[in-house]
Amino acid sequence: MFRKLLEKMVKDTPGGVGIVLMGYDGIAIDQFFLDVGDVDLQLVAIEYSNVVKEIHHTAEILGTGTLQEVTIKTGRFYVIIHALTDEYFVALTIRREGNLGKGRYIVLRDAPALNQALV
Amino acid sequence: MFRKLLEKMVKDTPGGVGIVLMGYDGIAIDQFFLDVGDVDLQLVAIEYSNVVKEIHHTAEILGTGTLQEVTIKTGRFYVIIHALTDEYFVALTIRREGNLGKGRYIVLRDAPALNQALV
Repeated sequence: MFRKLLEKMVKDTPGGVGIVLMGYDGIAIDQFFLDVGDVDLQLVAIEYSNVVKEIHHTAEILGTGTLQEVTIKTGRFYVIIHALTDEYFVALTIRREGNLGKGRYIVLRDAPALNQALV
Repeated sequence: MFRKLLEKMVKDTPGGVGIVLMGYDGIAIDQFFLDVGDVDLQLVAIEYSNVVKEIHHTAEILGTGTLQEVTIKTGRFYVIIHALTDEYFVALTIRREGNLGKGRYIVLRDAPALNQALV
């Protein structure tokens, strides 16, 4: 149901290596990962879900408005985390030599379709 | 020592409302905040430092490379968190109607000067 779209999102993003559709409770609905060798992208996604959960919670408490997007840049990857609903978000991982801007565009392009499928 | 530069960074960013130079231990070295009324930006900075600490730790453990930058987009603000050293980062808060791109430029422009002052 989601897999085909998730796979397309990764393949449409230059340098895209993985994506996960996940609840703030850390449970993944669906995902698609390429093999990047030494890094366990699924573990990365789970770890980041904890971070997003915290930011989500923090934003609400502090009155800074609902969390919409988080972008993380590390030495090897970009991760774009986009809030879909109050319960779910999608996290796209891109190699540093990939195209972050295109990735953000892809996420914004396909978020409505993911949202619709979540209802 | 830092205040003048921090204040300039906020004022050079359209929509800039505050900045904090902080350790991953949550202790601020220096900061400059405009009054935004209902939101306690200092509290926001402290809360985000916890988040950044977690991302910093996660990135190291999972082998995704050192954390370099985190951008958070909520309903009312953008927050750009930029790693300076292994111990310190700077977090710039911008109103949503402000200029995120200019803010990122300002942070990259002045990070070397902050770094130099930190040594």
